[in-house]
Amino acid sequence: MRDNVVHVRIVSPLVTRGFRKLEDLKAIEYPGISISHAEIATGPGSIESEFEAAMSVPGTLVEILRAEREGVDAVIIDCMGDPGLRAARELSGMLVAGPCQTGMHVASMLGHKFSVITVMRRLIPSFENTAALCGLSSKLASVRSVDIPVLELEADLAATAKRLVEEGRRAVEEDGAEALIFGCTGLMGCAAGLREGLLAEGIDVSVIDPIPTAISVAAGIVRAGLTQSRMTYPAPPEKQLLGYDALRAAMLPQAAQ
Amino acid sequence: MRDNVVHVRIVSPLVTRGFRKLEDLKAIEYPGISISHAEIATGPGSIESEFEAAMSVPGTLVEILRAEREGVDAVIIDCMGDPGLRAARELSGMLVAGPCQTGMHVASMLGHKFSVITVMRRLIPSFENTAALCGLSSKLASVRSVDIPVLELEADLAATAKRLVEEGRRAVEEDGAEALIFGCTGLMGCAAGLREGLLAEGIDVSVIDPIPTAISVAAGIVRAGLTQSRMTYPAPPEKQLLGYDALRAAMLPQAAQ
Amino acid sequence: MRDNVVHVRIVSPLVTRGFRKLEDLKAIEYPGISISHAEIATGPGSIESEFEAAMSVPGTLVEILRAEREGVDAVIIDCMGDPGLRAARELSGMLVAGPCQTGMHVASMLGHKFSVITVMRRLIPSFENTAALCGLSSKLASVRSVDIPVLELEADLAATAKRLVEEGRRAVEEDGAEALIFGCTGLMGCAAGLREGLLAEGIDVSVIDPIPTAISVAAGIVRAGLTQSRMTYPAPPEKQLLGYDALRAAMLPQAAQ
Amino acid sequence: MRDNVVHVRIVSPLVTRGFRKLEDLKAIEYPGISISHAEIATGPGSIESEFEAAMSVPGTLVEILRAEREGVDAVIIDCMGDPGLRAARELSGMLVAGPCQTGMHVASMLGHKFSVITVMRRLIPSFENTAALCGLSSKLASVRSVDIPVLELEADLAATAKRLVEEGRRAVEEDGAEALIFGCTGLMGCAAGLREGLLAEGIDVSVIDPIPTAISVAAGIVRAGLTQSRMTYPAPPEKQLLGYDALRAAMLPQAAQ
Amino acid sequence: MRDNVVHVRIVSPLVTRGFRKLEDLKAIEYPGISISHAEIATGPGSIESEFEAAMSVPGTLVEILRAEREGVDAVIIDCMGDPGLRAARELSGMLVAGPCQTGMHVASMLGHKFSVITVMRRLIPSFENTAALCGLSSKLASVRSVDIPVLELEADLAATAKRLVEEGRRAVEEDGAEALIFGCTGLMGCAAGLREGLLAEGIDVSVIDPIPTAISVAAGIVRAGLTQSRMTYPAPPEKQLLGYDALRAAMLPQAAQ
Amino acid sequence: MRDNVVHVRIVSPLVTRGFRKLEDLKAIEYPGISISHAEIATGPGSIESEFEAAMSVPGTLVEILRAEREGVDAVIIDCMGDPGLRAARELSGMLVAGPCQTGMHVASMLGHKFSVITVMRRLIPSFENTAALCGLSSKLASVRSVDIPVLELEADLAATAKRLVEEGRRAVEEDGAEALIFGCTGLMGCAAGLREGLLAEGIDVSVIDPIPTAISVAAGIVRAGLTQSRMTYPAPPEKQLLGYDALRAAMLPQAAQ
Repeated sequence: MRDNVVHVRIVSPLVTRGFRKLEDLKAIEYPGISISHAEIATGPGSIESEFEAAMSVPGTLVEILRAEREGVDAVIIDCMGDPGLRAARELSGMLVAGPCQTGMHVASMLGHKFSVITVMRRLIPSFENTAALCGLSSKLASVRSVDIPVLELEADLAATAKRLVEEGRRAVEEDGAEALIFGCTGLMGCAAGLREGLLAEGIDVSVIDPIPTAISVAAGIVRAGLTQSRMTYPAPPEKQLLGYDALRAAMLPQAAQ
Repeated sequence: MRDNVVHVRIVSPLVTRGFRKLEDLKAIEYPGISISHAEIATGPGSIESEFEAAMSVPGTLVEILRAEREGVDAVIIDCMGDPGLRAARELSGMLVAGPCQTGMHVASMLGHKFSVITVMRRLIPSFENTAALCGLSSKLASVRSVDIPVLELEADLAATAKRLVEEGRRAVEEDGAEALIFGCTGLMGCAAGLREGLLAEGIDVSVIDPIPTAISVAAGIVRAGLTQSRMTYPAPPEKQLLGYDALRAAMLPQAAQ
Repeated sequence: MRDNVVHVRIVSPLVTRGFRKLEDLKAIEYPGISISHAEIATGPGSIESEFEAAMSVPGTLVEILRAEREGVDAVIIDCMGDPGLRAARELSGMLVAGPCQTGMHVASMLGHKFSVITVMRRLIPSFENTAALCGLSSKLASVRSVDIPVLELEADLAATAKRLVEEGRRAVEEDGAEALIFGCTGLMGCAAGLREGLLAEGIDVSVIDPIPTAISVAAGIVRAGLTQSRMTYPAPPEKQLLGYDALRAAMLPQAAQ
Repeated sequence: MRDNVVHVRIVSPLVTRGFRKLEDLKAIEYPGISISHAEIATGPGSIESEFEAAMSVPGTLVEILRAEREGVDAVIIDCMGDPGLRAARELSGMLVAGPCQTGMHVASMLGHKFSVITVMRRLIPSFENTAALCGLSSKLASVRSVDIPVLELEADLAATAKRLVEEGRRAVEEDGAEALIFGCTGLMGCAAGLREGLLAEGIDVSVIDPIPTAISVAAGIVRAGLTQSRMTYPAPPEKQLLGYDALRAAMLPQAAQ
Repeated sequence: MRDNVVHVRIVSPLVTRGFRKLEDLKAIEYPGISISHAEIATGPGSIESEFEAAMSVPGTLVEILRAEREGVDAVIIDCMGDPGLRAARELSGMLVAGPCQTGMHVASMLGHKFSVITVMRRLIPSFENTAALCGLSSKLASVRSVDIPVLELEADLAATAKRLVEEGRRAVEEDGAEALIFGCTGLMGCAAGLREGLLAEGIDVSVIDPIPTAISVAAGIVRAGLTQSRMTYPAPPEKQLLGYDALRAAMLPQAAQ
Repeated sequence: MRDNVVHVRIVSPLVTRGFRKLEDLKAIEYPGISISHAEIATGPGSIESEFEAAMSVPGTLVEILRAEREGVDAVIIDCMGDPGLRAARELSGMLVAGPCQTGMHVASMLGHKFSVITVMRRLIPSFENTAALCGLSSKLASVRSVDIPVLELEADLAATAKRLVEEGRRAVEEDGAEALIFGCTGLMGCAAGLREGLLAEGIDVSVIDPIPTAISVAAGIVRAGLTQSRMTYPAPPEKQLLGYDALRAAMLPQAAQ
């Protein structure tokens, strides 16, 4: 940790430029934390399938290795699929966090059960799988979707907000949710609006915005002197790897110089 | 949040003076956080049973209400039984966190499975129950005890450290733990020693010190604009309460003045 | 066991007088059993929150210790929150039973899945938590509430009965319940009415009245020569305890004289 | 219930005469209960396999129907496999209880986790399956066996007792059991000896003798006005049945005369 | 395996003749497999209760022993209750498979969660129990019924088909099913129709026909050189068995001659 | 299916040539099945980490798309990490199966609980995660490792065989396994030896060789007219993808020509 400041890098695992604006991240900063941003050079335009999640991994690992080389203290992978989280943790001693894993644990701390409000129905199994791997299946009340693709969420923000409140209300009233998580990092910044929309209907429920939450909780974990356990994420053995020129370059010891 | 600083109050739910030293807490502070401490006036000398945990609750609630009145942003209950956590969250809009709940979720984020190394065998059911309520039973590899009472942990620190390493090693090798949590806040500060002791035996495993971890993660949750969900922890209805003079005084609206 | 009769004491953990009438308990007696009743001196007027449950514990422990001193064979804590159950079991070698724990296990023996019909929505997490600690989450079909406060249940008994049948029917038809438990001991005696109300709609389902069930099952456990296991509930260590004058007096060895 | 006495019939589902002695059952009687006994006419000599359990069902159903016709209030099937429990409950409105299901629920009420000490290793899956169907997998610490066939348990009672203590101690110390259940009703009456043997080794743990426990708990359920739920156990549809002359005769309406 | 062909015998565990037509089974054959059929001599007309399932076991075991003696490689029990599966596996070294167990595992391989569409509401607990014993409770989205008795399914095939599509659609849309299993082998051959009916409503979901699936998967297991594990299904000990003349004859060693 | 033969393609997701020999696969063929093999052009030399698993996915998808274009009926991914299974199922309508998922379900069908015997300790979390995603955590007795790297397994086959028997025996005796799965496809062909080695120690347990089992069970699923459900694995949306030239070429419609 340089200058007693925790440096957090957000790595957006998609090739669409402008998806994430640095100024929005900078607005989250507070004393003792510094936030930076990176995008990947190879991979999908957005992530709405297991295939696209897999395609985002090599480029994401390149950026995570770069971040570590630059002295960053923690990386957040900017997608609720947490793509490449396990592989990155093996490659790096620096804390790597996923907004989905982090958000689910925080939601479980704050409320009895939580629901995820995501963008597309097809992502429901993926969230249920993540909850299972987190050990939190019994805390997951439901996964609901607004059925709007990632890159169209901002096309009609009022419509998106209305759908979020609708599904949020149903998660609480029909599924028993007592905390809500946005199921897409593309919705960053909408938490306050959803919370107010639900309050207007008499529902006082915690709403977790995964990227800001992952940032400040990851910074807290760094401040506690912790990172992912090497027992679970040992470094990969040295071995032949064909293809992935950029990644292999990033993995070279001299890359650190 | 006053002055863009997160104020965290540690409330030690026992009447033994000197159990927790303010300077040890102050040593954890970092930019953007301020830590204070309180002890309770009524309750047990230490907590090693369900009975003692229950007896610590009224006095703990008095101190938590006082902290809220003083403008604190988050309270950590200084005991791995998280005594009074649910009741306190109902009484207060300020974040109240328990080191056991927080530590178990952080351990689950950092490693595949975790073990708790606690002081007395009799506490094992309590930790298994907490894990069940957190939804984390599948992440709990084991609970092991060093069989040293809370107030004797510091009598022979070398013996305590040796027992911690022994049980930590068995947790990893026999039970499959990939992260460890101290199961007593009285052991604060021993994490580095346990981690080094295990490293010396070739075991590279994350060791979570619950109080520092709860402090910085709770601060992170405050920075994310979150607190416990009112859906899960609604304010208790106004109602007759006999006894508990100090607590009823602390609950009066004018107490806030 | 004196005179080959099992003596069961019902301890109502609230300070509202008249909530429980001795004659209603006496009506449950049968050959070989004797039922008595006690109320607590300090604590809440009724229990509808985690806070109130916690506040009922010290007074409840005083009465449980008194019951043991008087030669009672089993105590039933008269609240579906089972407040103080674990602490009481540590303090006492006499069987202490909770109507919620007992009712859930009996429901699981008699039907494939059960639902709890309780008074207030806010109690749902508490019942789900109890089921988890009983190991019975997979048997809990749902928790439903009639949304009537404890002390108003008898204000309009017809309305209460109608709401019970409504929610009971939905538990069966929508949630898959095959047995029902009243989620408030304040509803004692309504089981027959609910069962008949549902039969009138063609639903033939077991309805468990928790206090009578806890009484006769606890008596059965006593007759089998059993009590709670000392492995799980060892006596608390002797230790300083500040405050709780009445309880400390009740705990003194000479109190038994 | 005739004469305000609960009549309980023990049905031993095997054709070996003398396995169960009526006087041993009569010794369990207490005010308000009357115990009788029946054996089956067709079926296995003892039950140590899924095959033998299945072969015991038709004869057991004959005896259960006879018991109901004779005005019995509850039947206990005298085998830890609970053979025919579900089928019997469909055929009868009278309470039918299994010692394994009942014992597991009672053990879960009295201790944090329980182990079953049974006769043969091959029965372990069956006990784990019963625990799963009871919803109690998380309460089952282990199943251990003394590796002595059912009909040889009494050949060398001292050796049997020694093995029980050995496996009971390992269940507590190695598996975390905090209550024990005999895994064979052939061991009825040995509970006190096992409990004393463990106490002599400093282990104070509840030991559940399944038949006495099932008798008094079933009587308690009858006293609470309950029986198995018709939702879970509806009467079988009227239908062709080839073979099973004795059973079909027992099922005829006129059989009740 | 004779002539490098896997011989599979379907044993229909009911005494109604014509329930299963050999030509329908023959239509499933493909290179390397030969399918035959048997009915039982004693037992129920159809299986819609736990009682009838139990009554089908002895006759089913007779036919399974006969099949083994005739050199068959695998037997499929032709009922979704898998009656006698465990007992048969103990008696036989030849693979014995149940369509429900097999169908649930295949559904879990092909989709994220599955629902069972069965004939009668009363069978729901039985399917949930089978899923629990398979370890697949978390994969079971729901069990739904069309409420048509087994032997009336073919009375109005159009009505049956309509009800199947209705409940299949609700399983997908309301319960989150992503694969469907017919919950009655009497519906064999309707899978294509259900799948098309759902496709016509825009739902593209795998539909598992349990008998054809059990046949070809069991043949696959035989081809892999596998059968049930003797650890789980050891041969029953030799022992007295009263009644069951046909079965005892089938079990005699000379029966194999 | 051409010529009423099921064509199965094994895709080895590593770039080490000679790891899998076609003749070993051809030896598995039986009437009605044809087996072919492919290796990948980019990726790791072997897979012993989450990182290597991720790096194998793009090359594996290229080969799976090629197989589908060539009219293959099912692909088996030749690694117990099932790398790319979900992504491949989204891209393809042809059945794609993983040996780990398939082997775990088959083991659960054949025995009460199973253990995985794998190569390296570091793979244990990965197998436990796969079991959780399969819904089979309660069926997984343990994961044990022989601690020999994948590419050294054949260096000293006798030593490998000895270690397999050792860990297999401990899985049965200490962990309660009743079926075993090889946790590395590099061990194909050793099942018979392990089974015999255990039989020599008196342990009669099913041993699953994942590749032969996945081949014949996948063929069985194809014969039942089934493939993965489109509900769970919908085709990815059309979208920008940077990098992955070979894969994008394979995905082009004209690639099918």
